[in-house]
Amino acid sequence: MSVHAIAIHGGAGAMPRESVSNERAQEYRASLALALDAGFAILDRGGTSLDAVTTAVRMLEDNPLFNAGRGAALTRDGWVELDAAVMAGAKQKAGAVAAVRHIKNPVDLARRVMEKSRHVLLVGVGAEEFALEEDFTLVANLSLRTDERRRQLAHEQQGVSVSDLIPSPPGTVGAVALDSRGDLAAATSTGGMTNKRQGRVGDSPIIGAGTYAKNGVCAVSATGHGEYFIRAVAAYHICCAVEYRGLTLAEAAREAIHKNIRALGGTGGIIAVDARGGLVMEFSTEGMFRGARDAHGRREIGIYRDEAKTAG
Amino acid sequence: MSVHAIAIHGGAGAMPRESVSNERAQEYRASLALALDAGFAILDRGGTSLDAVTTAVRMLEDNPLFNAGRGAALTRDGWVELDAAVMAGAKQKAGAVAAVRHIKNPVDLARRVMEKSRHVLLVGVGAEEFALEEDFTLVANLSLRTDERRRQLAHEQQGVSVSDLIPSPPGTVGAVALDSRGDLAAATSTGGMTNKRQGRVGDSPIIGAGTYAKNGVCAVSATGHGEYFIRAVAAYHICCAVEYRGLTLAEAAREAIHKNIRALGGTGGIIAVDARGGLVMEFSTEGMFRGARDAHGRREIGIYRDEAKTAG
Repeated sequence: MSVHAIAIHGGAGAMPRESVSNERAQEYRASLALALDAGFAILDRGGTSLDAVTTAVRMLEDNPLFNAGRGAALTRDGWVELDAAVMAGAKQKAGAVAAVRHIKNPVDLARRVMEKSRHVLLVGVGAEEFALEEDFTLVANLSLRTDERRRQLAHEQQGVSVSDLIPSPPGTVGAVALDSRGDLAAATSTGGMTNKRQGRVGDSPIIGAGTYAKNGVCAVSATGHGEYFIRAVAAYHICCAVEYRGLTLAEAAREAIHKNIRALGGTGGIIAVDARGGLVMEFSTEGMFRGARDAHGRREIGIYRDEAKTAG
Repeated sequence: MSVHAIAIHGGAGAMPRESVSNERAQEYRASLALALDAGFAILDRGGTSLDAVTTAVRMLEDNPLFNAGRGAALTRDGWVELDAAVMAGAKQKAGAVAAVRHIKNPVDLARRVMEKSRHVLLVGVGAEEFALEEDFTLVANLSLRTDERRRQLAHEQQGVSVSDLIPSPPGTVGAVALDSRGDLAAATSTGGMTNKRQGRVGDSPIIGAGTYAKNGVCAVSATGHGEYFIRAVAAYHICCAVEYRGLTLAEAAREAIHKNIRALGGTGGIIAVDARGGLVMEFSTEGMFRGARDAHGRREIGIYRDEAKTAG
């Protein structure tokens, strides 16, 4: 009896409707739908949740609309610096990379760290040395930078006016999935905050903060102002509440986002899936790029808070 | 009514008694006592828990016996690469650095990240750039390396025989404290595993894994095989169990170390203090360098599991 399900996000933040053209919004919806359906197709043909989340996140990384991979936010010095993590719920194995500059798909490198190293988290040039040893091809940082993100950085640094830019980070991409074997997985990838310091690491690659998965409990991927998610240990807080306190996934997600993160002064969102394929997408921002699909026929794509559930 | 209390650790691991000379053991005890008493003195004269843990950890960093600061474990390539974190329970503020190579006292830099940056975690050269902007003096990596750690690396890499070396990491130093205002704080600092990859980050600088503090609940600092502590989100697991499930700190610590970490295949230890000054030191290894002191007159220093509580 297959109960497979997947949810994805492409970042949460202040995104007033008037600042995003209808055309732009349609591009986002179409991109989310592609990644969602690609991940779901893997689950549908009996693939693993780990493959599904990795594939969905890789597609969002490759899409310059989203703040991950090519088209990620730029540091204070104009560089792309990327963080990513994956976690497989079966044995709670995890891999993550942070502050890498020459990796086209950090989610693939995070998975390689999980599968081929003794370590969980590798950062900076050490992570790239590992990538080379594992036959990854390094790419020029320049190839990851887009003009739109350059304008956003100028806007942040000098107040240069911008219109209809893709929403400024905080933003991140991520996916969570349950496969028909009952295995849960989560993946998250990001370029972090526009104008961040070199070497700043957010919550995405921090196991327990931006990413967590444990079979029989849930898988979580977060997006938002990373520093708050780190201090609140948001993803693990949700898993703990479900496993040990008997909260539903929806209750646990609301507590993390609207109580714990808010108490610290932060906003953001999470996507999560429980051990029965129940999907939750919770956020405290004006919008969160998101999509959800399950084996019972649910399929939705959303951006704003108050929109009707649409078939995307 | 002052209930101030502090605990420190200097690493946990396999340390068979026959491999550590009595003279060496006495050096460890004396060093632990100095750091413990320095931290306690700060609490005793009304200082903050944050100052107490920072001071105790700084002293352990400066002591080449311990795997942090000068005398830390060496990477595969023979470098010292350091990680550290601090967390202040009052507002759950946190700061951390990872994979820094030219910082004599990473705990001070972690605290500066908490107090002077918008970020929680800075890594690598970006963390060192921040240090320079904050008028830290960078030091040569060579000045942090000791002959004993070089011999340990050779032992790991080539099986060169060693005798009466200081115990090989996994190991870390850390401190937790409650001050008379009721503020909790935790700090952890480490050189990580001997023969680790460049860029490998363990649990110490990961908020929720190796370090956590929340007023009214507890403060935790961990030591052991970091990858397992990251995957189990050990420090926050303990805080969560105390805050939401009503476990005592001792029960929560036992669950984390002997159940959750063990289930993943890992070993290590934690020190923790609760909101009333109750101190817990729990470990699953043969020994943990440790010390505890409180305002009720308790004062103990320990290394092995089965030793009688001594006055140090």
